[in-house]
Amino acid sequence: MKQQNAKALQELFQTYLENLSYAREPMGLYKPVEYVLGIGGKRIRPTLMLLAYNLFKEDVHAVLSQAMALETYHNFTLLHDDLMDKADRRRGKPTVHKQWDENAAILSGDAMVMLSYQFMMKDCPAMYVRPVMEVFSQTALEICEGQQWDMEFERRQDVTAGEYMEMIRLKTSVLLAGALKIGAILGGASEADAQKLYDLGIRIGLAFQLQDDYLDVYGDPKVFGKNIGGDILCNKKTFMLITAFERAGEETKAELQGWMTAEQYDPARKIEAVTAIYNKEKIGDICLAKIEDYYKEGMGLLEEVGVASEYKRHLSDFIQGWMHRKL
Amino acid sequence: MKQQNAKALQELFQTYLENLSYAREPMGLYKPVEYVLGIGGKRIRPTLMLLAYNLFKEDVHAVLSQAMALETYHNFTLLHDDLMDKADRRRGKPTVHKQWDENAAILSGDAMVMLSYQFMMKDCPAMYVRPVMEVFSQTALEICEGQQWDMEFERRQDVTAGEYMEMIRLKTSVLLAGALKIGAILGGASEADAQKLYDLGIRIGLAFQLQDDYLDVYGDPKVFGKNIGGDILCNKKTFMLITAFERAGEETKAELQGWMTAEQYDPARKIEAVTAIYNKEKIGDICLAKIEDYYKEGMGLLEEVGVASEYKRHLSDFIQGWMHRKL
Repeated sequence: MKQQNAKALQELFQTYLENLSYAREPMGLYKPVEYVLGIGGKRIRPTLMLLAYNLFKEDVHAVLSQAMALETYHNFTLLHDDLMDKADRRRGKPTVHKQWDENAAILSGDAMVMLSYQFMMKDCPAMYVRPVMEVFSQTALEICEGQQWDMEFERRQDVTAGEYMEMIRLKTSVLLAGALKIGAILGGASEADAQKLYDLGIRIGLAFQLQDDYLDVYGDPKVFGKNIGGDILCNKKTFMLITAFERAGEETKAELQGWMTAEQYDPARKIEAVTAIYNKEKIGDICLAKIEDYYKEGMGLLEEVGVASEYKRHLSDFIQGWMHRKL
Repeated sequence: MKQQNAKALQELFQTYLENLSYAREPMGLYKPVEYVLGIGGKRIRPTLMLLAYNLFKEDVHAVLSQAMALETYHNFTLLHDDLMDKADRRRGKPTVHKQWDENAAILSGDAMVMLSYQFMMKDCPAMYVRPVMEVFSQTALEICEGQQWDMEFERRQDVTAGEYMEMIRLKTSVLLAGALKIGAILGGASEADAQKLYDLGIRIGLAFQLQDDYLDVYGDPKVFGKNIGGDILCNKKTFMLITAFERAGEETKAELQGWMTAEQYDPARKIEAVTAIYNKEKIGDICLAKIEDYYKEGMGLLEEVGVASEYKRHLSDFIQGWMHRKL
């Protein structure tokens, strides 16, 4: 069976995406859609879906529309999340509510949901329509739940690490998991294999977010691409911060709390001080161990999938490359 | 075949809706959904769907979930439209962005879309999943297009009656049409019959909106339930106003324009003066004739549907009752 690596699949998808046209009326509705989908991004979800499909079937062209559904849905969530978070920029470009206005962001986002359902239905073999649509709708709804928890957590001071991981599962992992599962279903995988790939997606999503949290503190700024300590400065309730509060003694907790509530401070000193607390409490090590656990669990699940090992190489290379980025 | 009238079907649906539970976490996401769906409304779309289904099949219980999908989607559009229009109240209650906040309105609205897709899939017989989902997604997308046109028309001074009718078709008619068509598909109707019912829905949607425009000027305030002249006072580009501008001579147009741009005026005098222009230009008669045309066309389409005439009585009674309300 002919198999393609992640890069080839990602390029195939990118070409497909670029050849789609949104030159439709009303332009005020479709221009923002085209803009958002054209900004770029790593196309991780479609690539995962195609890799999963390619474990079982060759003709990846047949399911590019379903890959597009996932990318469209993902970009819809970014669009509405940026509006709710009042974020001005995304991937170096103005967000839709900045480039147009809030109503454009609301309505073009809504249209992207319907478009993603249309992409998901398009040329989907009859026998897979129901299972695929069920996974997709469930996933889509769970992502809304994750975003709701995320917004609620911002206003709460008692979020536990367990609650945080569940929020991440909903907000980030289920779409990666759904992408793998939909790819598997379309590839004709057994239910057990499709579920194993889903569970793999959950693990890599959790690992990926923990890695993001870790890199914000310990990453190499030249490689990470964001400023180090950004989460610390805005008191973001990451796994690092929550775990530090859970593990630290009263005195250290008070010190951490002091930095959180300080209204005037030198940013470099705040980052340095909070990082020192993380060092003392070994939060970085705890985080790395957790990442490693999820990664190993995920790879164990992939091993169990009932296709020849050599077929799994591209998917496992992709995940490995991704997990070891910038660490 | 046992058939039920609109009132019985509407009550059946209402009971179904009231027995659904949204007591799910996160409550911040689902409470607004429950609130919006619980406020009430005439449940026109599910009733139309059930009436169309009942032309062909008896067991309306089997498709209550699909009826719920339509009502959920309809209420999602109201929720997001109210947010975009900054409307404070809907059906006498605070809108979601007033009762909670804008983010709740965005995200709970999003969740309602996914819920409506889940309701549409639920227990849908395998052979109808694809045609039903295709009609639903297309309809859902067109409603976004209609809302976009509506918002754009507010900023334009050159909207034609033709453009206005197309906007209404998208914003209002396609969901009524889609409801009838989905009911027909699930009932096992032929494609031709399903399409005739769709086309009927388009006609009654257009007629319904024109009636609304007419009643704002010529309705009986005791029956209409809204204040007469509301559209005139806020310069709403209704069929009445657009047609008046299209038909009036230069002098009358200037007078009308004067009322539109006046910053200070006695509301009662503005209503009286604009109504006098409508009277002189026979705008009311033109509007009534158009309503009658759509209604007759619709009823002609219903006659052509290939089931015994007596089966059609409940659907035609429902539409008639609706068309002759308050006129």
